[in-house]
Amino acid sequence: MSTSVDVPESSNVEKGRGVTVAAARPGGTKKGLAIMDFILRLGGIAAAISAAAIMGTADQTLPFFTQFFQFEASYDSFPTFEFFLISMAIVGAYLVLSLPFSVVTIIRPHADGARLLLLILDTVFLTLATSSAAASAGIVYLAHNGDQNTNWIAICNQFGDFCLATSSAVVAAFAAVVILALTVVMSGVALRSR
Amino acid sequence: MSTSVDVPESSNVEKGRGVTVAAARPGGTKKGLAIMDFILRLGGIAAAISAAAIMGTADQTLPFFTQFFQFEASYDSFPTFEFFLISMAIVGAYLVLSLPFSVVTIIRPHADGARLLLLILDTVFLTLATSSAAASAGIVYLAHNGDQNTNWIAICNQFGDFCLATSSAVVAAFAAVVILALTVVMSGVALRSR
Repeated sequence: MSTSVDVPESSNVEKGRGVTVAAARPGGTKKGLAIMDFILRLGGIAAAISAAAIMGTADQTLPFFTQFFQFEASYDSFPTFEFFLISMAIVGAYLVLSLPFSVVTIIRPHADGARLLLLILDTVFLTLATSSAAASAGIVYLAHNGDQNTNWIAICNQFGDFCLATSSAVVAAFAAVVILALTVVMSGVALRSR
Repeated sequence: MSTSVDVPESSNVEKGRGVTVAAARPGGTKKGLAIMDFILRLGGIAAAISAAAIMGTADQTLPFFTQFFQFEASYDSFPTFEFFLISMAIVGAYLVLSLPFSVVTIIRPHADGARLLLLILDTVFLTLATSSAAASAGIVYLAHNGDQNTNWIAICNQFGDFCLATSSAVVAAFAAVVILALTVVMSGVALRSR
């Protein structure tokens, strides 16, 4: 007859407390990683939302116009920048919604299910954030430098403020990318540590 | 006196076999995931190398020329496509070098250190592959559609073969991205399962 029959499967924390003598502070590494994960997510929310906001408000109208055209540049002049705005808003919303799960991993350091869920979703949104940031970076490069071979002219001479705003948005987006990559790696480390 | 004192720490497989009665086939999930991981990596190598090869050989010279210009398009006309070629070659090389570590996780399903290393490096190269694929996709879109607001003309009417080749390379690169994202997720699942 074993005494462990009565212990329900879900009481991992209690079990951990039971072996405190053997290994000091069980789940201490996990808890530390979970707290860092939470803080990183707050930074990621700030980066993603500010990237979306900067891109959304990037709008410049030149102070001269012809009979037919008024020269204006805004994010919806470029499909890539629209994709950037939408995907950064989605990433920001996801990061906000992921906060409760991050809190669960702080309160219950052995809740590996929530941690695995976060790892999978973080990987998906890391790919989304990276693709929109990189595609916009390519367009921003073209706007700054143009392309000789195809006669695509640089527009940043005329639309300096617009170019500055979109460049800042891309930088903020890459900050969100770095943070998401860190959370993926930290989830992996936390899943490994006992 | 316990008989288990003589068992060295490294013999995880033997230990696993010892408790077969309690849990059927310990590490079976991990081994299956490791084998799938290896197969996915082979597919990723094919995708990354073919993406680099298609982009590297994309070259089209138009059959007419003026006194000053010969109209030619190749990957080195666009800095983004050069970045694409270099980063896809790097990703392909990384995937080849990661095969031995994948074999280690097949032979020793409980070698979580190798698995964690693969997860971290996979995340890094996932970001690299995604950024180059997305940036090139943005340029390919411009080459196909041009941009009204900036008077960037579509070049695919003239350079049809070149556009087809670069589009195919981008598709192959996104296949490599999907495979890398899958290996990251599978490493996470394998780290969680006991």
